Amino acid sequence: MRYINSAAFSKMEKRFRTTLINSLSGFKSVNLVGSISEQGVTNLSIVSSVVHLGANPALMGFVMRPVTVTRDTYNNIRQTGFYTFNHITTDIYKQAHQTSARYPAETSEFEAVELNAVFKENFPAPFVEKSPIQIGLEFKEQIDIKINGTILMIGEVKTIFVPEDCLAEDGFLSIEKAGSLTCSSLDSYHTTTQVGRLSYAKPGENIREL
Amino acid sequence: MRYINSAAFSKMEKRFRTTLINSLSGFKSVNLVGSISEQGVTNLSIVSSVVHLGANPALMGFVMRPVTVTRDTYNNIRQTGFYTFNHITTDIYKQAHQTSARYPAETSEFEAVELNAVFKENFPAPFVEKSPIQIGLEFKEQIDIKINGTILMIGEVKTIFVPEDCLAEDGFLSIEKAGSLTCSSLDSYHTTTQVGRLSYAKPGENIREL
Repeated sequence: MRYINSAAFSKMEKRFRTTLINSLSGFKSVNLVGSISEQGVTNLSIVSSVVHLGANPALMGFVMRPVTVTRDTYNNIRQTGFYTFNHITTDIYKQAHQTSARYPAETSEFEAVELNAVFKENFPAPFVEKSPIQIGLEFKEQIDIKINGTILMIGEVKTIFVPEDCLAEDGFLSIEKAGSLTCSSLDSYHTTTQVGRLSYAKPGENIREL
Repeated sequence: MRYINSAAFSKMEKRFRTTLINSLSGFKSVNLVGSISEQGVTNLSIVSSVVHLGANPALMGFVMRPVTVTRDTYNNIRQTGFYTFNHITTDIYKQAHQTSARYPAETSEFEAVELNAVFKENFPAPFVEKSPIQIGLEFKEQIDIKINGTILMIGEVKTIFVPEDCLAEDGFLSIEKAGSLTCSSLDSYHTTTQVGRLSYAKPGENIREL
């Protein structure tokens, strides 16, 4: 195994370091964040930092840099209070990746990358029509992470649209069956193959495959 | 597609809701957190909430519930200031899952699930010997998420051990080649298959596969 320490990190070329460090956390969720400005311009941006925070209430967070390509998303969320997360499949992953380009605020990434926005069930923010798992959230709290200026945006899940045949009787939603991808580092996209589901673990008991 | 709203969430049976809501964020990173108490008892716990926070300095966070199975991990991190993240492969995923059982504080999960702890390069916290990607972190900051009592633990990457043949010339570390798994919901583990790496996106330019 190769041993690398933080002294070596600081000597690395910037892009090399960014690519490497982004690989370390493991496979990441990958979602398209849909939002709309007060002026009615829709926005779509790809994020790989969505994290589950709690089930009751249903809370999810994602990490945002304050002054980057995602600023439109930030402004829209703070202005309107609503946004969506939309899973990405092999069919749309190139378009999804393209939303990370720095389009001007007056350009809708939905139009620029040719992904259709849909509004439904009176939810105020746009969903990605081709996404198999669509999640509507209400903004709850912004946490400023002072150590590096990033922001944790916390929202409550208010509405979801999921494929009927991917929802098991115990509440397990097979995002693999739905075609959701995972990503690694900055730009690598992956399908998945289930190894197994495991039973609830207790000391002294053997876990079993469900 | 099936439409479910937050009013329906609150009527769901608790375990069903937890399983469903945990499925929504997408595929998750899955890591074993290694730590050691001031008394020298090692601890190992599985977490699916590790998130990249920044590359320079190299910062990673993970979400912790304040009074649950992970309290030993919390105490150890706050006492000693150091911990490790270790990726999980198909070879060890059942042992990794078993660490989520509620063992008493005086029990080392390393021993209980028969995963060997290793100390190396003077790093104060234990790594998982069989893990292909081992990350040593120094605790930096605890952020209390008041909305639901969870805690975001932030640490700086101080040292890593990675397979030499998985590190590309541009800094991309192929965690797929290393055998790292991803997980979904509470208990589902998955291998991955790379669809592609995509070039840096710019407005008006076609992205290409790397």
